[in-house]
Amino acid sequence: MPTRKLWRALTPLALLTALPLHADEGQWLPHQMLELEDQLKQRRIELPAQQLADLTQAPMNAVVGLGYCTASFVSPQGLVVTNHHCAYGAIQYNSHGEHNYMEQGFLAKDMAHELSAGPQERLYITDKVEDVTDQVLAGTKETSDGYNRYQQIETNRKRLIQDCEADPAYRCSVRDFHGGLKYYLLRQLVIRDVRLVYAPPQSVGAYGGDIDNFEYPRHSGDFTFLRAYVAKDGSPAAYSEENVPYQPKGFLSINAEGIRAGDGVLVAGYPGRTSRHKLTEELTFSADWLYPTQAARYQARIDAIDALSATTPEVAVAYAATKASYANRMKKLNGLLDGFRKTDIPAIKSSRDRAFVAYLEGKQESQALTDLRALVEKSQSDYQASVYLKNAQSGALLNAAASLYKWAKEQEKPDAQRDAGYQERDRKLFAARLDRLERRFDARMDRILWQQDIDAYLAQDQRDPVLDAQLAKLDLETLYVKTALGDKDQRRAWMARTAAEFESSSDPLIQMAVALYPGNEARSKARKTHLGELAEARPQLMQAMLDWYQSQGRPVYPDANGTLRISIGHVDGYQAADALYKQPFTRLEGIREKHTGIAPFDAPDNVLAAIDERRFGAYARADLTAPAKPAWYCGFLPCAQADSDAFGSVPVNFLSSADTTGGNSGSPVMNGKGELVGLNFDSTYESITKDWYFNPEITRAVHVDIRYVLWMMSEVDHAQWLLDELTLVK
Amino acid sequence: MPTRKLWRALTPLALLTALPLHADEGQWLPHQMLELEDQLKQRRIELPAQQLADLTQAPMNAVVGLGYCTASFVSPQGLVVTNHHCAYGAIQYNSHGEHNYMEQGFLAKDMAHELSAGPQERLYITDKVEDVTDQVLAGTKETSDGYNRYQQIETNRKRLIQDCEADPAYRCSVRDFHGGLKYYLLRQLVIRDVRLVYAPPQSVGAYGGDIDNFEYPRHSGDFTFLRAYVAKDGSPAAYSEENVPYQPKGFLSINAEGIRAGDGVLVAGYPGRTSRHKLTEELTFSADWLYPTQAARYQARIDAIDALSATTPEVAVAYAATKASYANRMKKLNGLLDGFRKTDIPAIKSSRDRAFVAYLEGKQESQALTDLRALVEKSQSDYQASVYLKNAQSGALLNAAASLYKWAKEQEKPDAQRDAGYQERDRKLFAARLDRLERRFDARMDRILWQQDIDAYLAQDQRDPVLDAQLAKLDLETLYVKTALGDKDQRRAWMARTAAEFESSSDPLIQMAVALYPGNEARSKARKTHLGELAEARPQLMQAMLDWYQSQGRPVYPDANGTLRISIGHVDGYQAADALYKQPFTRLEGIREKHTGIAPFDAPDNVLAAIDERRFGAYARADLTAPAKPAWYCGFLPCAQADSDAFGSVPVNFLSSADTTGGNSGSPVMNGKGELVGLNFDSTYESITKDWYFNPEITRAVHVDIRYVLWMMSEVDHAQWLLDELTLVK
Repeated sequence: MPTRKLWRALTPLALLTALPLHADEGQWLPHQMLELEDQLKQRRIELPAQQLADLTQAPMNAVVGLGYCTASFVSPQGLVVTNHHCAYGAIQYNSHGEHNYMEQGFLAKDMAHELSAGPQERLYITDKVEDVTDQVLAGTKETSDGYNRYQQIETNRKRLIQDCEADPAYRCSVRDFHGGLKYYLLRQLVIRDVRLVYAPPQSVGAYGGDIDNFEYPRHSGDFTFLRAYVAKDGSPAAYSEENVPYQPKGFLSINAEGIRAGDGVLVAGYPGRTSRHKLTEELTFSADWLYPTQAARYQARIDAIDALSATTPEVAVAYAATKASYANRMKKLNGLLDGFRKTDIPAIKSSRDRAFVAYLEGKQESQALTDLRALVEKSQSDYQASVYLKNAQSGALLNAAASLYKWAKEQEKPDAQRDAGYQERDRKLFAARLDRLERRFDARMDRILWQQDIDAYLAQDQRDPVLDAQLAKLDLETLYVKTALGDKDQRRAWMARTAAEFESSSDPLIQMAVALYPGNEARSKARKTHLGELAEARPQLMQAMLDWYQSQGRPVYPDANGTLRISIGHVDGYQAADALYKQPFTRLEGIREKHTGIAPFDAPDNVLAAIDERRFGAYARADLTAPAKPAWYCGFLPCAQADSDAFGSVPVNFLSSADTTGGNSGSPVMNGKGELVGLNFDSTYESITKDWYFNPEITRAVHVDIRYVLWMMSEVDHAQWLLDELTLVK
Repeated sequence: MPTRKLWRALTPLALLTALPLHADEGQWLPHQMLELEDQLKQRRIELPAQQLADLTQAPMNAVVGLGYCTASFVSPQGLVVTNHHCAYGAIQYNSHGEHNYMEQGFLAKDMAHELSAGPQERLYITDKVEDVTDQVLAGTKETSDGYNRYQQIETNRKRLIQDCEADPAYRCSVRDFHGGLKYYLLRQLVIRDVRLVYAPPQSVGAYGGDIDNFEYPRHSGDFTFLRAYVAKDGSPAAYSEENVPYQPKGFLSINAEGIRAGDGVLVAGYPGRTSRHKLTEELTFSADWLYPTQAARYQARIDAIDALSATTPEVAVAYAATKASYANRMKKLNGLLDGFRKTDIPAIKSSRDRAFVAYLEGKQESQALTDLRALVEKSQSDYQASVYLKNAQSGALLNAAASLYKWAKEQEKPDAQRDAGYQERDRKLFAARLDRLERRFDARMDRILWQQDIDAYLAQDQRDPVLDAQLAKLDLETLYVKTALGDKDQRRAWMARTAAEFESSSDPLIQMAVALYPGNEARSKARKTHLGELAEARPQLMQAMLDWYQSQGRPVYPDANGTLRISIGHVDGYQAADALYKQPFTRLEGIREKHTGIAPFDAPDNVLAAIDERRFGAYARADLTAPAKPAWYCGFLPCAQADSDAFGSVPVNFLSSADTTGGNSGSPVMNGKGELVGLNFDSTYESITKDWYFNPEITRAVHVDIRYVLWMMSEVDHAQWLLDELTLVK
């Protein structure tokens, strides 16, 4: 466990405020814009707060969700722009044989040649956000039992959603805010016919690939254009040749002159999850135990995959995607751990805690803090006690056996009472998942990875007699020889069988799944009980905290939860380390600098030619010449290059201080007039800890500059018809 | 072979000039300062050029050579400051048992407690530089044969040195400038009693170690204080308790306020070797063939050492230093190759060549270029033809056998006619080298490395029948079993034997050495012949080039050759890559940022405590607060942090554009008044190609800031008596 460093307690006071007055922290609910007039003014945002708060007006009615990403309408004909990495599925779906659009890029000749993005692709347009706290909590006051409370909330939620989804054009959800202090019902129009319009090749869209992931300076053309189609009557419909372009209520104009350093920006989108309001104890648990434990496990898995892959090519192929995903998680975990080493965030949070505790003193709510801390502590020790047991069941075939047995058990209940994922509507996906197992599975590799988890489980004290007995029966090698679940057809056959058939099976993995089932179900119920208790305790504390902030005149944003938010920031570089300054804009020349010809640094020839010939078109920043370097400005500070020529180029990516997280990929980055100037696509390595703490000095989001998009369209891909469809302003 | 990229030809014209008018390129002979009044003025150097040119006046009479490094006097009592890495031998010599001064650092209590730096340590003070071109070339006009010319020059050289060294207080040398256009006799006073006064621990002096080597931002306290002692009568003498501090003719004052970004600096020292004036053909040969070939060989050797070390701990120990030295060369080679990839230096040089060829047109000297090109081409093909043959004799024991046989052969000549290294005066060192072989030798490892070189030799066409026959006789494994040279005493015994005894020996390695001797001697003679031819052709071309530059009013510095030089530069950061700006100063906080507790990032507790407590003493740059950020300044340019507090700190290292190379380590960095403000110790990775081409935009030398040295003395090590000895000015 890392030692907390005393010296970090000397962090300048400015950092200790957890919520912003004038910083750029905050993923705000649109209606909160009304509380933020000062902040908008400070960033020179000209749009009235009233307009920003209104989901039926531009620019917010132009913001689109993809489920896992964000996008925006950029024409009255339903043209949508998002990240290349958000449209990966749409591009992949159309890439086969000679048409490898992933590799070559794709540009429809005209609207008639746009390609279906596939039956799974969806666009979501949020058109209503309604406070349903009272309805969700109805009936919960009557019970003090956590499990009952949990179930009551779930029942209320399901009913609200069912009512809302009476109109099949909409998808609805009920999200909790501030840990359950508030609940909102969100209604989203669902576009089901999405088409691929224009995607650059992967060597542009993902230039730098995994190596540059989370890094800056960055040179990624991470953009793709899609289009929303609907039935002729305007209603959402599945793909059909008869469908027509959707006419959105609003769309964004594009500022072809882009943005300058220091300018204010707005980022709108669907950030996934942050933990800014969690207790310091929850942070230290993650920093000191959870993340290091996870990192050690992922590293061991990566090492094992590497070792077997070296001698077994088919394992290398089957586990390539798994390994890439572990590597990505490792990078994020390392970023978190490095960030905690560099900035003692727990010390910063503790300092805030002390002020809050002082405020609570003598108040009734101080009990809420004590209660929540106790619940959190229990939750952590429960997790520590059970995570090894859970991991020790990680074998892919055991997982299949467990799911199949649960499927059979849930079949015994009426459909409405079955657990999520085990209802009739899930049958197709469930079967597909069983089949898909094959693609990323090798019995030898699976056995080695599972054995690692079993060894870790056996090396600690928190043992489960049922699992111990199961493990004592057979070693894994024999288990894999004896089970029939390695065969796809055999697996599928079990979907049709009754629980009793499982219970009398002689397949050792089925036997293991049956034996473990009661314990796992009991632990699941305990977890729900605990969630029910937390859903009561946390809102009480959050209310006290909101009161505290309000007493200081400070507005508070709820932690991200996948709902539509607005962030306010400004274009700025950052001090990445002592004497190392990262400037806010990258330029075309940087693509050439990084180019080696070997993926992921293999820029296409036509891009390189345009750069080398300095065909910058209308999108160069020729106006930006460096002023004579003022001598007094140079102390410890960056001194600019005097060669102004080197800076007259097209910007590729830029940084802003806007507050973003996963889910904000593809988010429109807008100037103070609400005009599109960029697309959000990543964060810097130093920003990875921002899910816990927004450090305004170093937290930067990375955006594609819209001028690079326009330059690609005009100078490289000659997408004139598409450029003509955009509304370019200056 | 890398393709030359056409686009690089578009490099701004400013880069195409190979010699500077207003840039900071140039390692100037002190007397050339008189030609550089404009440049000195531009950098606001207040010292008169006349004074700088005078080796008998300060500051130049305070500059000291160490043979491989530079130092300077900083007190009238012979106190000298240089780099920690230049004083490594002196510190190592005194580190044993409980006194591990390398680890703990060393500070003498007072002058009486200063420690002898060992019998090998020398300080050299250049006091005379004399043009001896006519004497060196005397008699060379009479011969057109390269070998005779080479021998004549060597004979003349030796005679001049012998005359000069009649006074045993001096060491003399004759160096060639501009490839032999000029020869200068240099006379240096030799201090033989050198003592260790103050060295920080390695964790300060080499903070960042090999990882930070060639890198920036840097946080190295690379300084050590030594003192020169002489006999009571003032004459140089070997160590004796009776000796007294040497009173130098001059010493440097120290500016305790240091230097600011943009300020001009002077760097004086002994740069080793550069190739700025070499032909473009010599550069492309290195870039396209020599460096890649060397890099491949070093990498193969490193891999082989790693592989055997993994299973054989004694090999890991014996080859640790060898591997570290290969790794260092690999970093330099990679830096060269990366640099050539990033900037097409051959294209820049070719562009200069075209202008020069145009100037030469119709002139008699154009033949000189043709001649030199032909000679260089022959030299390169000879090298390519023989390097594999040379490498194929790389076995350490074969090397010993070859040296021993040559020793016996040279013994047959009168001492004065023997080759350098084989004279009576070399006997002790020769024997020591034979003994030392043991320390870095393992027969298995040596055999594997040698076999790699033999395989490379066998894989190409340029074969030597003698070597082929030898290799056919026995495989290496048998050779190592049968030879007695693996035994130290046996090796030493051969030093006393006659050539005839070698020739009748049955030791297979002795037989091999005897067989290879005639061929190796013949190749050596051919090389000398070639050098004699070059020594005639290159000066002719250099004279034409000097005339050309003179016609443009541009002074020209000769390539570095280990003689005393002065560089003029200014403190400045640099654009290391697109959007990545490296600022000119690092700060104490950066030491804390990098500290992990694990070497080489294991700063001592007392340093960390002083940083954490912000005990900045008198050396902080509290006056340097960041001005409000002007919005117009931010386009693509670095925008400073607004937090001025973060910049009020002690500078650790800084960058300047001064032109340096290996040998400049420890060089005094002086302000415009000739006051010491830093010590040169390294260059940035992007600067590695500067030995071929000085790119003023990215070439930066890395210096220890004198305020960090003073801060260490005052706030960490409390070296008050030593501080009192310095002359601090403001």
